[in-house]
Amino acid sequence: MIKKVLVANRGEIAVRIIRACRDLGIEAVAVYSEADKDALHVQLADEAYCIGPTVAKDSYLNMMNIVSIATLTGCDGIHPGYGFLAENADFAELCRECNIKFIGPSPEAISKMGTKDVARETMKVAGVPIVPGSNGIVESTEEAIEVANSIGYPVIIKATAGGGGKGIRVAKNEEELLKGISITQQEAATAFGNPGVYIEKYIEDFRHVEIQVMADEHGNVIHLGERDCSIQRRLQKLLEESPSPALSSEIREEMGQAAVKAAKAVNYTGAGTIEFIFDHHEQKFYFMEMNTRIQVEHPVTEMVTGVDLVKEQILVASGEPLSITQDEVQFNGWAIECRINAENPAKNFMPSPGKINFYLPPGGIGVRVDSAVYPGYKIPPFYDSMIAKVIAYGATRDEAIARMKRALSEFAIDGVETTIPFHLRLLEHNVFVEGDFNTKFLEKYNVME
Amino acid sequence: MIKKVLVANRGEIAVRIIRACRDLGIEAVAVYSEADKDALHVQLADEAYCIGPTVAKDSYLNMMNIVSIATLTGCDGIHPGYGFLAENADFAELCRECNIKFIGPSPEAISKMGTKDVARETMKVAGVPIVPGSNGIVESTEEAIEVANSIGYPVIIKATAGGGGKGIRVAKNEEELLKGISITQQEAATAFGNPGVYIEKYIEDFRHVEIQVMADEHGNVIHLGERDCSIQRRLQKLLEESPSPALSSEIREEMGQAAVKAAKAVNYTGAGTIEFIFDHHEQKFYFMEMNTRIQVEHPVTEMVTGVDLVKEQILVASGEPLSITQDEVQFNGWAIECRINAENPAKNFMPSPGKINFYLPPGGIGVRVDSAVYPGYKIPPFYDSMIAKVIAYGATRDEAIARMKRALSEFAIDGVETTIPFHLRLLEHNVFVEGDFNTKFLEKYNVME
Repeated sequence: MIKKVLVANRGEIAVRIIRACRDLGIEAVAVYSEADKDALHVQLADEAYCIGPTVAKDSYLNMMNIVSIATLTGCDGIHPGYGFLAENADFAELCRECNIKFIGPSPEAISKMGTKDVARETMKVAGVPIVPGSNGIVESTEEAIEVANSIGYPVIIKATAGGGGKGIRVAKNEEELLKGISITQQEAATAFGNPGVYIEKYIEDFRHVEIQVMADEHGNVIHLGERDCSIQRRLQKLLEESPSPALSSEIREEMGQAAVKAAKAVNYTGAGTIEFIFDHHEQKFYFMEMNTRIQVEHPVTEMVTGVDLVKEQILVASGEPLSITQDEVQFNGWAIECRINAENPAKNFMPSPGKINFYLPPGGIGVRVDSAVYPGYKIPPFYDSMIAKVIAYGATRDEAIARMKRALSEFAIDGVETTIPFHLRLLEHNVFVEGDFNTKFLEKYNVME
Repeated sequence: MIKKVLVANRGEIAVRIIRACRDLGIEAVAVYSEADKDALHVQLADEAYCIGPTVAKDSYLNMMNIVSIATLTGCDGIHPGYGFLAENADFAELCRECNIKFIGPSPEAISKMGTKDVARETMKVAGVPIVPGSNGIVESTEEAIEVANSIGYPVIIKATAGGGGKGIRVAKNEEELLKGISITQQEAATAFGNPGVYIEKYIEDFRHVEIQVMADEHGNVIHLGERDCSIQRRLQKLLEESPSPALSSEIREEMGQAAVKAAKAVNYTGAGTIEFIFDHHEQKFYFMEMNTRIQVEHPVTEMVTGVDLVKEQILVASGEPLSITQDEVQFNGWAIECRINAENPAKNFMPSPGKINFYLPPGGIGVRVDSAVYPGYKIPPFYDSMIAKVIAYGATRDEAIARMKRALSEFAIDGVETTIPFHLRLLEHNVFVEGDFNTKFLEKYNVME
């Protein structure tokens, strides 16, 4: 069993991991950049060490410093959280070489899923539905044109090294295709060091539905149902829920099985998410990508299944078998998560860092808050603007929405602007309430108007 | 359906009721004493009115003022919470006369259960096990001696108008019996205006186990499992949990059925609790008393059943049928509640009112906080010292305990002393962890030493 975990992250996910360590009775070591010396995760951890200057490249992305501190403090596990080094195969490899357990999948699984055309091909072979498109990287403009003609425009050009909405471009015709390929290749070469691009049919009207999977080192893989993350702004998720209001029980079952297949295809271990494009008109779904880490929105799954995913990550990384079988997974009720960002939704979500003068998170029945701020805390402008996640749970979607509205209206944060007013309006929007929307919801409706 | 509720209480339960109103989409009106103008319930309600001076007799117990404000503000329901007017049959009657729905049982049910010898007799007739003792009020010293001899010493002398640990006295022999009756009668005459006393066999070594019931106006009565409240200090509950570590499934079933019988015997409506003396050695239980209101510890039942008891109270008072049947009630996991009082556990639980300089409640998975304070709030010295309830939930008792320890160790309150250090020690105590204790636990073990 892992006995001491270095938490290679900051913000609410660092706090989340420290809590899981506490619940397991194991020690947690925090690391922090110079800008984060007063951060909550630093205060809550058993030990905390500065790993470098404010700029993430030199601190939270500084692999050598992190591994050194883990070694020096006797940590036998490193939890990377999400972002930063979470999907960095080199880091996972470095941990392995240093005999520290990387709490996540193998470097091989990370690499396979991180290289998007390889992931696509692997899924195809495994029998997971993929969007029609090229067989791997397009090698020539002739091939690109041929593929595009066969699947029909519009198409989407994707950098194989991209992901999470980065390195993609839509083309409605041949001209845009050729231009798009050229630009995307150049951008990808610069940004990711890999110019390879591939082509897929562009599905415009879809819901983002993802499946949580969990796998141990003994070959057991289970799924824990779906999350609907269709409420996005510029590909950034803002609200997530489980279950999805759009899924029939048949599709849910199929999607879950496809996700398990996907994980098995890369010998996955730990917590992971298979993201799907769900064409709700055709009732068909396609593999989008796999996130080989814990996700921001994992709590909605925890609420409906009762499974503590971060604890489970640590247990599985310790070599334990999964704590539950697929048959034992039960889904109860409905959970919604709102991401509270220090941004001004009335001013185009402009970041609003600064000092929190007054802070009182909501409480009561059906309300969970995962946060990393406190009264008097100064939100630094250097990192992600998310300061809290509010998760509301209810027996039904209506109950979860009602509790979320109540929780957000209680949430008192003074000193910085937040996305709370945005969420309150979103939750009142009749299209949201009805549950019939796609990923373009926020392009179509400006809820702040 | 009730449309606007006056919340005739203060503190966390007032906040709890306001939250239930919000969740139902109905309005909530707060009332407050002069000492409570800055209280959280005042800030969270839709409207708030001062009902009198600091002393509760003239404010929170001032029936006429409360009913007047309800009438003036168009409230069609009054929720009394717990304490104050919650179990006052006259108040329930006054509400009825003023055509305002008292969110609780009928005045008749309150009276019947409030007069302890009548409640005892009613339970006996209904077939609910009662502790051996006198048939109602003892009318003479001869009768008292005869009863005591037949059931055997020690016996307990109870004022029929008492309850909640008030107006009771133990007698180990005839001399103590005669003296005890005389003193208890005098005290009861003064304190409750009713000198009647009755006698029961004194069971010393028992657990306090109570059953939550819920009944509608259509004759449906269900129970929602038990709460174990054996951790008490001077008859004040400090920690409660559901389920009880001491109950077999057979006893649980029997006790639940007995509680339903008890509620039916008084045509009960709304939320109520049947408290039992559970003799864990003999595996026998006896009716102790019924609390005809929502209780402080109701959240542990909410966590394990998923039923929102306060919402259900309002729905049932509106004439709705119960939202679930007995068969639909499911018990999942384990919940523990710790009462956080502004008291110094190192100094014999001396009250510690004053200003809260820093306040950060715990969060994360499995943690619920019901509180009525905030950073900068001044806890007045005039009322109950409870400032927050932390409820931890887990799949197992061990998980719930681990999460509670984590939550309490995170809970930051600066400016006043609290019972958090007490609870942290209690949760580490091996006898508590093993779950094998009775109501004398805190007399036997001084966890603060």
